[in-house]
Amino acid sequence: MNRLSKEDIEAKLLRFPDWEYFDNAIHAEFEFENFKDCFSAMSRIAFECEALNHHPNWSNVYNVLTISLSTHDAGGVTNKDFKLAEAIETIVEQEE
Amino acid sequence: MNRLSKEDIEAKLLRFPDWEYFDNAIHAEFEFENFKDCFSAMSRIAFECEALNHHPNWSNVYNVLTISLSTHDAGGVTNKDFKLAEAIETIVEQEE
Repeated sequence: MNRLSKEDIEAKLLRFPDWEYFDNAIHAEFEFENFKDCFSAMSRIAFECEALNHHPNWSNVYNVLTISLSTHDAGGVTNKDFKLAEAIETIVEQEE
Repeated sequence: MNRLSKEDIEAKLLRFPDWEYFDNAIHAEFEFENFKDCFSAMSRIAFECEALNHHPNWSNVYNVLTISLSTHDAGGVTNKDFKLAEAIETIVEQEE
């Protein structure tokens, strides 16, 4: 899995308006009604992560979920990150 | 719920060797076998948080869970944080 160039990442991000590229990773923040809704989305995302064998750096405070994705072995952002970002978007759209 | 003094917090922390006090909150880091075990513990902790109506500032990267507890309304650490820390310890001991 090759690390994508800054240009490739920025081109791909046009389809991901919730996500930003900085510090060698892609980042998004999602806000939910409350903690329960937020953690429900996290649980569904956790299953996707296991299925894709790719795991986020993520934080939660009450109803806010902050996610950063990068591919450690590649030293940057790869298509694996965009695949997981897409799965996350699908889940969040259903839960938000 | 009153904010505890530094002395009170440090006295209480003697019973919580995994936790440290700094930046006006108590903090712990827990390591698990893998992501699944880590997220399982997080799920059990999430139920406790809802039951206690008290929520952490927490982060996860693969098998590592980092938790910070403070009571926003009190502007610091209160007995609510120690109650949740105790519940977290019980869960983590069973999962780790």
